[in-house]
Amino acid sequence: MFAHMSRLAVQYGAVNLGQGFPSDPPPAFLLDAARRAVGVSDQYAPPAGLPLLRDAIGADLGVDGADVVVTSGATEALNILALALYGPGDEVLMLEPVFDVYVPQARLAGALPVTVPMRLTDAEGWTLDLDAVRNAVTPRTRALLLNSPYNPTGTVFSRAELEALVALARQHDLWIVSDEVYDELYFGERPVPLRDLAPERTFTVGSAGKRLEATGWRVGWVACPPGLAGNIAAIRQVGSFCTPTPFQVAVAAALPVARREGFYEGLRAEYGERMGLLANGLRELGATVFEPRGTYFLTARRPGWQAEALVRDAGVAVIPGEAFYLNHPAPRGLLRLAFCKARAELEQALERLSRLAEVGVGE
Amino acid sequence: MFAHMSRLAVQYGAVNLGQGFPSDPPPAFLLDAARRAVGVSDQYAPPAGLPLLRDAIGADLGVDGADVVVTSGATEALNILALALYGPGDEVLMLEPVFDVYVPQARLAGALPVTVPMRLTDAEGWTLDLDAVRNAVTPRTRALLLNSPYNPTGTVFSRAELEALVALARQHDLWIVSDEVYDELYFGERPVPLRDLAPERTFTVGSAGKRLEATGWRVGWVACPPGLAGNIAAIRQVGSFCTPTPFQVAVAAALPVARREGFYEGLRAEYGERMGLLANGLRELGATVFEPRGTYFLTARRPGWQAEALVRDAGVAVIPGEAFYLNHPAPRGLLRLAFCKARAELEQALERLSRLAEVGVGE
Repeated sequence: MFAHMSRLAVQYGAVNLGQGFPSDPPPAFLLDAARRAVGVSDQYAPPAGLPLLRDAIGADLGVDGADVVVTSGATEALNILALALYGPGDEVLMLEPVFDVYVPQARLAGALPVTVPMRLTDAEGWTLDLDAVRNAVTPRTRALLLNSPYNPTGTVFSRAELEALVALARQHDLWIVSDEVYDELYFGERPVPLRDLAPERTFTVGSAGKRLEATGWRVGWVACPPGLAGNIAAIRQVGSFCTPTPFQVAVAAALPVARREGFYEGLRAEYGERMGLLANGLRELGATVFEPRGTYFLTARRPGWQAEALVRDAGVAVIPGEAFYLNHPAPRGLLRLAFCKARAELEQALERLSRLAEVGVGE
Repeated sequence: MFAHMSRLAVQYGAVNLGQGFPSDPPPAFLLDAARRAVGVSDQYAPPAGLPLLRDAIGADLGVDGADVVVTSGATEALNILALALYGPGDEVLMLEPVFDVYVPQARLAGALPVTVPMRLTDAEGWTLDLDAVRNAVTPRTRALLLNSPYNPTGTVFSRAELEALVALARQHDLWIVSDEVYDELYFGERPVPLRDLAPERTFTVGSAGKRLEATGWRVGWVACPPGLAGNIAAIRQVGSFCTPTPFQVAVAAALPVARREGFYEGLRAEYGERMGLLANGLRELGATVFEPRGTYFLTARRPGWQAEALVRDAGVAVIPGEAFYLNHPAPRGLLRLAFCKARAELEQALERLSRLAEVGVGE
C-alpha cells in the first residue's frame, strides 16, 4: 500500500505526505561525524555493535550498554525479536491500526498476529480498549507488541494504561516488545518507557534514524532485559552480521550532543508547529483531525476524501487507513498524513486540498 | 569460534590473521563518493535498492538491474535466500569446510544443513568429490549452496565441475545459491559465474564490502533468476527495510570506476604477492600450504601447530579448521590464515611463528 501510494505520488507529481521520512536534513553534528568516520572505521563491527555506541545508547536510555544490541534500523530490531521470541503456533498480540511491518514479521517467524482494535470516536479520538486486550490473550500468546508514541494514531499511552498492560504481561508471562522509535517526538507529557515498568520482560526498540532525521542510515537498537543481549546478538549476527561501522561511530558521537544541545526539544517545537499548521488547515477544510500526542503523523477524515482520489485529483499523497488494518474494518475515510515535511510542502498540500474542497469532488 | 579467537587475539596482543577484513583502507574514489552522499541522500531507499545501484550492479555482472536486490551485506543476502527458499523439512546441500553463517541461517529457516566434505591431500590439496555430492541429494533437497572462490579452501571450481553441479541441480530441480563475494579476488583463471551456466535457478550473492575493501559498510546484493527479484525484495523489506542510502549512492558511483580503472587487477596483483609472501614463509617453517586460487585466505597445517597455542605462545591469531566443520571431522591441524593484512603484519606473524618453531613448542 505504501509502495503503491508512493508510485501514485510520483505518477501524479503529488506533494508526498505519505511515507514518514523528514524533508529536513540530519543535523550538522551527525553529518560531520559520519564524514569523519568514513575512511577511518570502514571494516566489520562486532555483531552486537561497537562498544562505544552500545554505551552511548545505554547512557541515553539509562540502561547498561551491555544490554543493548545495535541493529540495522528498528525494522531489523523488530524482525530479530520476532525470530527470537515467537515460533510456529505462537500468537503475538498487537493493536490495530498496526504498523505494517509487524504482521509479516510475525508470520515469517511462523507466529499468528492477533490484533485488538483501538476505539476511534470523533469526540474522544483514539482510545485503548484494555478489556479487549485482556480478552485477546490465550494460552498461546507469547508477546505483547506495543508502539508508543503510536504510528499511525499518534497515541501516547498513559502510565496507568501501561501499568495495566504490564500487569497483564506478568500475569500471562508475556514478553513485551516496545517499539519506541518516536520516543523523543511527543507534544505533551514525556512518554513513559515500558522498560521502566517491566525491565525483566521489555525489549525496547529505538532508532537513530527517527531521532536524528536520517531514516536512510539504518542505525537502530534493542535494549534487552538484563542478560539477554547475547541471545539477540546471536540472531542479529546471522541476519546481517553488523550495522555499518561508520554510521555507528557517527551516532555514538551524536547521541550525547543531541541530548546536551537540546536537539530533541528543537525538533518537538518545530514539528509541534508543523502539526498545528496541518491540523488547523485540515480542520478549516472540514476534516476531523485526531491530533497526535507523539510521532510525526496525524490521522484525519472528511466525508468525500479518499486516498486514491486525493493523489489523483488533488495531487496530495497520503496513506489510507486500510493500510494499517488486518483483521478489522478500518474506520471509514481514515487517512494518515505525515507532517515531517517542509512547511512549504504542508502549505502546498493544504492549498491543493482546498481547491478540491471548492469544486466539491467526491461530495 | 571467530569471536573466541578475536578475543584471544586481543588478550595476547596477537597479530590477527583471523577475521577476513583488509588492513588497507577502501579506495579514495569510494570514500569520496560516500562523503559526498552523506548530507544529500540520507533518507529511506526503496527496499530493493536505489535504481541507480541496481543498474550499476546489473551492468557490472551482465544482468538486468531489475533482477538485482540490494542487501545489507552478503550475510543478509544469504539469510534472505534461506528464508525465501527453504522451510521446515527441507534440506540444503553445502560443502564442508563450510563458511560458518550458512549453517545457522539454514536452521533459522527451519531447514537441515547437509554437508558434503571436500577431499584434502597434501599432494592434491582441496578437491571436490562430485559423487559424494550426488549421493547426498534426497527428495527433500531444495538447494545447493556453493561458494567459489571458496572460503576457507581458496578453491575456484572449474567450468566442468560447475557444469556437473548444474546438471545435478537441474535433474533434481534444486535452487543454486552461489556465494561469489570473492568474485574479483582470484589468482589464476577468472571464476565462472554460476548464473552464466544456470540463469534460471541461480541466485548470485555479491559484496561491495569484499570487492571495495569496506567490509563494515554492509552493501551486498543478490542477482536473481529473471522475475524473482520482487519476491526476494519483499522478504528483504521485512528484514531490515533497506540498505543505507549514502553507501548505496557511493557504491553505485564506485563500481564502474573500479572496473574502468583496473582496481580489481591491482587488488589481485597486491594480494597475490602477499599470498606468496605468507605461503612461502609458512613453507619455510615446515608447513604444508594449500595455495588458494581465490579469496584472501589460505589454509595450511604443520605438525605441532594448533590455533589456541599459536595465539597464546606465538601471538598469532588464526582460525582453526574446526570452525568450518559441522558433520565431519576437520582435517588434523588445519588452520585458515587471512592475507588481506599489511605486509608488515604478515612478516611479523611469520617472524613470531619462526621463533615458536625454533623453541619447538608443541613438537
